[in-house]
Amino acid sequence: MNSQALDLHKKYTGKLETVARMGKLRKTLLPLVYTPGVADVCRAISDKPDLAYTHTLKGRTVAVISDGSAVLGLGNIGPLAGLPVMEGKSLLLKEFGGVDSFPLVINTQIPEEIITFVRQVAPTFAGINLEDIKAPGCFQVEEALQDIGIPVFHDDQHGTAIVVKAALLNAAKVVGKPFSSLNVVIVGAGAAGLSVARMLLGLECLGKTCTLLPKVDRVNDVICVDRIGALVAGREKQNVYKQSLADSSNKRMLAGSLEVVAKNADVIIGVSGPGAIKLEIIKKMADKPIVFALANPIPEIDPELAKKAGAVVIATGRSNMPNQINNVLAFPGIFRAVIQGRLPRITQQMKQAAAHALAGCVTEPTAENIIPTPFHPGLADIMAKAVLKAK
Amino acid sequence: MNSQALDLHKKYTGKLETVARMGKLRKTLLPLVYTPGVADVCRAISDKPDLAYTHTLKGRTVAVISDGSAVLGLGNIGPLAGLPVMEGKSLLLKEFGGVDSFPLVINTQIPEEIITFVRQVAPTFAGINLEDIKAPGCFQVEEALQDIGIPVFHDDQHGTAIVVKAALLNAAKVVGKPFSSLNVVIVGAGAAGLSVARMLLGLECLGKTCTLLPKVDRVNDVICVDRIGALVAGREKQNVYKQSLADSSNKRMLAGSLEVVAKNADVIIGVSGPGAIKLEIIKKMADKPIVFALANPIPEIDPELAKKAGAVVIATGRSNMPNQINNVLAFPGIFRAVIQGRLPRITQQMKQAAAHALAGCVTEPTAENIIPTPFHPGLADIMAKAVLKAK
Repeated sequence: MNSQALDLHKKYTGKLETVARMGKLRKTLLPLVYTPGVADVCRAISDKPDLAYTHTLKGRTVAVISDGSAVLGLGNIGPLAGLPVMEGKSLLLKEFGGVDSFPLVINTQIPEEIITFVRQVAPTFAGINLEDIKAPGCFQVEEALQDIGIPVFHDDQHGTAIVVKAALLNAAKVVGKPFSSLNVVIVGAGAAGLSVARMLLGLECLGKTCTLLPKVDRVNDVICVDRIGALVAGREKQNVYKQSLADSSNKRMLAGSLEVVAKNADVIIGVSGPGAIKLEIIKKMADKPIVFALANPIPEIDPELAKKAGAVVIATGRSNMPNQINNVLAFPGIFRAVIQGRLPRITQQMKQAAAHALAGCVTEPTAENIIPTPFHPGLADIMAKAVLKAK
Repeated sequence: MNSQALDLHKKYTGKLETVARMGKLRKTLLPLVYTPGVADVCRAISDKPDLAYTHTLKGRTVAVISDGSAVLGLGNIGPLAGLPVMEGKSLLLKEFGGVDSFPLVINTQIPEEIITFVRQVAPTFAGINLEDIKAPGCFQVEEALQDIGIPVFHDDQHGTAIVVKAALLNAAKVVGKPFSSLNVVIVGAGAAGLSVARMLLGLECLGKTCTLLPKVDRVNDVICVDRIGALVAGREKQNVYKQSLADSSNKRMLAGSLEVVAKNADVIIGVSGPGAIKLEIIKKMADKPIVFALANPIPEIDPELAKKAGAVVIATGRSNMPNQINNVLAFPGIFRAVIQGRLPRITQQMKQAAAHALAGCVTEPTAENIIPTPFHPGLADIMAKAVLKAK
């Protein structure tokens, strides 16, 4: 037990607090922040709804919403036990992105009900960060919510995909291979796996259809592997999201296990669980292997072991190792752009632009430095600018 | 236009902000507030759900939820335009009660959907303050939510009722009449009107049934008047909530208009709108009339006019007049008790206790001082103690 974390949470009864922006409430302020003065603000917004963005917290606040069905590496622990993660996420949005945020954990795991909940709560916020919702429900939920007027962004998909692409852009430079030549194998075909695949291939996917985005850097090929084996066109036991990706990836239509399809791969990305990447697999990869073992807290393979097997660039999700692939590199800047630009949605082009901006923060990539830390000066601003430029 | 209120809201982009409780996030804190350390807190809560109260914001945070269907005196202006009021309410909970709070305005006005929404969001909070939801839907919503494990408190009903009872306890002393002798007429039979009637009669009502609470101070009689006339047993055009109150009030079964039933009343309480109480009505009341004209921002009768007609004690909802009947006197202390006592619900006995505690804050009531101001020292603590004692 990491009692330090438990102690800290108990000391402060959690982490996030609500406070008055105008400081201590003096007697003269009371009739302005509440009745009767507040009625003027209500009337003004009733006449001109846009004023909600300039005169209420809606203009600067994002919800972090979860059903607790896929929390960190802990699985379906439910909304209450997931709350510390969502509260932490809200904290990071504020600390790194300057964006106010509030966590909402909800007592349903039915996609249709989550969709209704988000639609209903939308007037309060400038954007919604969906979090730790299990696949494939998470795809259905997010797709259904693209028309609600504020962005709905599932961080486990897109945050991860943005940071992985940024790291891979720099890793390719380190090993001296063009990004467009890379053959990538992804271990895991859940929310993160499918989204990373889409990102690296420059795809935009909606339900059954994936289309190629124009003017986007893409790798040569991606093969996604789930428990059964490689996703490949025509395979049975693939949900609609796996099917559509299979149709747009795995060009050589390789079937079979990870051991089979990872032979001669340039890159292996684990978004699965401990032990999913064996030593022998890395030994059979192409020259100068790149291995991202992103399972948290225990990576798919021990980084020391991967190094011994020949991996040249290694990234993990851990803060105590080099090259930490951490969503906090992406989501604060993304939502900073949402607030600054009052964006109605976050497009795939914006996510691609964010990945490139993040990669650009490392001017001279090395094997142990392919990605900046969350404390990189001005990171959220750099990301937000890139996102807004892609409007 | 009160441009001061608009200016203030624009200057701060609203009023409420979310901040980290542990101050600036240093590098060493990051792995404790978020992954990997936070996983320990999730696991601990998964094993022992009660720890959510000591290790997350749930333990000290209340939601202010509204559908925007009955906002202040403005009516059904919808969720977005209602947000400034809810944000203000959250602010007051923090400033006066020391209770963290977040406003949620929702995009549905169907009682069944509001009920579902509140049930779903309940794991996040220690209590729910329903606000500005129109009658009779508000009664249905609140009744359906009494079993969800955290208190659901509709402030427009109970906050108003608590403060009115407190003020009336002291007003009775000023005019030298026993509280139990008072005949009260209430103008308006919406959320506030029915709840004030129940409170003054010491009733507990659920749907069709009202029962008398034991050991509670009650007035002699109450007659509620709506647009049609007095609520009276057997009258047509009374919803189930008006019916049940009619069955338990208006002992002499008076029918007819306000003019008729207010004759010889000791007290008239307006929770209606401007102009609803005429000068002639006050002239025909019993000796030493008590008049509460609570419509905001314009009272049912001009207080100067009421005085000329003979009213001895006058209260309004306005901050620039004596005897302001303001819900902020009640809800911060009520929710302080909810947090301190981890209450599963707020009982009718607790509300009665809160009213008496509030009345007790004025040691020597006079015609112009029957109720304390929101800045009364230690008010929320006094209220919270009384509520917890009534457990």
